Amino acid sequence: MKVDLLIHNCGQLLTLASAGPKIGPALRDVGLVPHGAIAIREGRIVLVGSEAEVRQQASAQVEIDAQGRVVMPGFVDPHNHLVFAGDRVEEFEQRLGGASYQEIAARGGGILSSVRATRAASFQDLVAQSRARLDRMLAQGTTTAEAKTGYGLSLPDELRLLQAIVELGRSHPIDLVPTFLGAHAIPPEYVAQAEEYVDLVVEEMLPAVRDRRRELNATPFCDVFCDEGAFNAAQARRILSAAQRLGLGIKIHAEEFARTGGARVAAELGATSADHLIQTDSGDWAALAAVGVMAVLLPGTPFGLGLSKYAPAREMIAAGVSIALGTDLNPGTCYCESMPTIIALASRTMRLAPAEAISAATLNAAHAIGRAHEVGSLEVGKRADVLVLDSDDYRDLAYRFGGNLVARVIKDGREVASNSVVLAAKVRPGAH
Amino acid sequence: MKVDLLIHNCGQLLTLASAGPKIGPALRDVGLVPHGAIAIREGRIVLVGSEAEVRQQASAQVEIDAQGRVVMPGFVDPHNHLVFAGDRVEEFEQRLGGASYQEIAARGGGILSSVRATRAASFQDLVAQSRARLDRMLAQGTTTAEAKTGYGLSLPDELRLLQAIVELGRSHPIDLVPTFLGAHAIPPEYVAQAEEYVDLVVEEMLPAVRDRRRELNATPFCDVFCDEGAFNAAQARRILSAAQRLGLGIKIHAEEFARTGGARVAAELGATSADHLIQTDSGDWAALAAVGVMAVLLPGTPFGLGLSKYAPAREMIAAGVSIALGTDLNPGTCYCESMPTIIALASRTMRLAPAEAISAATLNAAHAIGRAHEVGSLEVGKRADVLVLDSDDYRDLAYRFGGNLVARVIKDGREVASNSVVLAAKVRPGAH
Repeated sequence: MKVDLLIHNCGQLLTLASAGPKIGPALRDVGLVPHGAIAIREGRIVLVGSEAEVRQQASAQVEIDAQGRVVMPGFVDPHNHLVFAGDRVEEFEQRLGGASYQEIAARGGGILSSVRATRAASFQDLVAQSRARLDRMLAQGTTTAEAKTGYGLSLPDELRLLQAIVELGRSHPIDLVPTFLGAHAIPPEYVAQAEEYVDLVVEEMLPAVRDRRRELNATPFCDVFCDEGAFNAAQARRILSAAQRLGLGIKIHAEEFARTGGARVAAELGATSADHLIQTDSGDWAALAAVGVMAVLLPGTPFGLGLSKYAPAREMIAAGVSIALGTDLNPGTCYCESMPTIIALASRTMRLAPAEAISAATLNAAHAIGRAHEVGSLEVGKRADVLVLDSDDYRDLAYRFGGNLVARVIKDGREVASNSVVLAAKVRPGAH
Repeated sequence: MKVDLLIHNCGQLLTLASAGPKIGPALRDVGLVPHGAIAIREGRIVLVGSEAEVRQQASAQVEIDAQGRVVMPGFVDPHNHLVFAGDRVEEFEQRLGGASYQEIAARGGGILSSVRATRAASFQDLVAQSRARLDRMLAQGTTTAEAKTGYGLSLPDELRLLQAIVELGRSHPIDLVPTFLGAHAIPPEYVAQAEEYVDLVVEEMLPAVRDRRRELNATPFCDVFCDEGAFNAAQARRILSAAQRLGLGIKIHAEEFARTGGARVAAELGATSADHLIQTDSGDWAALAAVGVMAVLLPGTPFGLGLSKYAPAREMIAAGVSIALGTDLNPGTCYCESMPTIIALASRTMRLAPAEAISAATLNAAHAIGRAHEVGSLEVGKRADVLVLDSDDYRDLAYRFGGNLVARVIKDGREVASNSVVLAAKVRPGAH
């Protein structure tokens, strides 16, 4: 078979092959093939396995020598707030001085301050700032990412954010999966009239969002921030049910700061994912496991906030919940674009084994955004989204931290990023 | 004045200028000059200040446009175990499964497993593995670094590690400050004969180490790992006093896992630094502050181990202790080469303000290894070790995490590293 590209000399080839989401002990199976190779044609994987087998069947125009290193699927980031303007570094300093996230929000900071900045930014600026984040995500190995709206909070502003996602999805190598998060916060125009804002979301925003599916090249998900100070479980149920009636997939921010019932709403409605889940109990885990709702855990957020309580991942795994990992990239609680950093955090703060964290950051993350038929593992027919690491042991992704072990990023069969550092020789004062 | 290089258009120029180590409120003063510039001649800073002032006095052959971004001194990493072979990723997995650092050490793992790997490695291999770490440190903005021995634990093996430091210091852009840590662990040959090993360190190793100062181009520091399972305070005192008599500067690993008195030994002997200090109390802080011992705090280590107790930095600062930050890069507890990651950790786990963490990672870190006359701030006469960040707000170093904000690294007036990512345009399956 003639192929376009052969990636060979893969010391550890992680296929992540699996019939469905990885659950329980299967999380530890990264499908390790020693001395592996991948053959790629027209952007898709056509052969994958031991180098001997692959070479027997394929002859390639171009080869990439992985030099005995780890080769694995690109990361899938299933939860991030990509599109915003400005930052909230001031609030970060206030929090270090002792202010809580809720106190800052009560003062008009928090999400609403990013809403003001995002509404005020020009479309070009918004796209440029978000594109820079995508560039950094790509450099850290993310090849498919969710992208939420939620800093608009009015019909035209939310549609503008969706339009930014269209523009970024068209032009950036990372594939974007859009999520409408109109119910991210109660906007200033609706203070003490939350129900009326929910009406607006349900009656006007959701149909308009659904109608953008052609430009988006996908039916967007609908998400709700269900928590103290945001939307309650009844409001979340109303919004997400309406979204389902329109044919949208649903997700929910549940039990991040307080346990307000979002996880049960996710189970009741059969959401694709329930995210955060820090304040959950065994009843919640059983409910999520029974329906197969993916739990998207976001350890960057408690870390970003300097908190010490993380989602009870080990208990959830033991209860049969399927877990994924995401960055939660956002300007308020977690300005982190790096999935490897999330893996290193997850291993230490939630006791995930390196293999578990990698499964959660690839295949299960793809399931969390409905893209597991296309990405998340290296299997025949899937997109050739492949990373070559600067390491010969995949566990280094968890064990080592603070650097970038992603050396080369291949998206749809083409190399789109390579992290290089130009080093000059030693110089000494006076030697000029 | 004719100069070799002008770095201009520095949106935030952080000079860190200070007469001595930064203590108390001074830690928050990063010497911020808006619209700044630096003029460099023969690898040293000759002018620094507002761009208008600098331009009035200097005409440059070469200019670097900082594009309105943050420009600051290169990081100084005052505590790391650079020179080792192999890794300890297996132990990392065991720890995630519940084993403690002390349990792993008791089974023959821990430091002694790195001693075996380091002794077995060829000199070329040892240098190559360490050089790769230096390359990654440089990419993260470290321009001066301590480098400890301590995985040899015999006279010839420790001297071989010093020789590796000589070789790396000669050839790598990062300036190395050598530290002899022969008392890192009790070697297998001396189990239950710790005092005899201390005799060996004092009588044979220290004089031989001192005699290497010409090749090292520096008088090495002497350090001792004073803790439960390592050396006790009396042994540490004996070794460090002997080192002082030979003219070596002294340092100590103190109160990392258990409070065994190392901090008081540091104060008693007037050590240059006492490092870790997690299990210290107010009496310890008063003793360190009274003598001006630099406290080198290493938050990467509890993080690396998945522990939740960090050094009480705020209390130490309030008690007048001068603090620095280091990576503690080592294969067992903290495989982290990145000073920016340590700043992001320090702000969240020890509540350091971004400015405090930056002072601790530059000027105070230089004091911690006796190099503040040469590096750690951007002042006339000091080496031109300068970073240009991919950010216009220095607080981003703490606020954002998981990426690399260091865009360009200038060492001794020459650009030695630049972090670049090659991005290809969007491609789609079928579009080939």
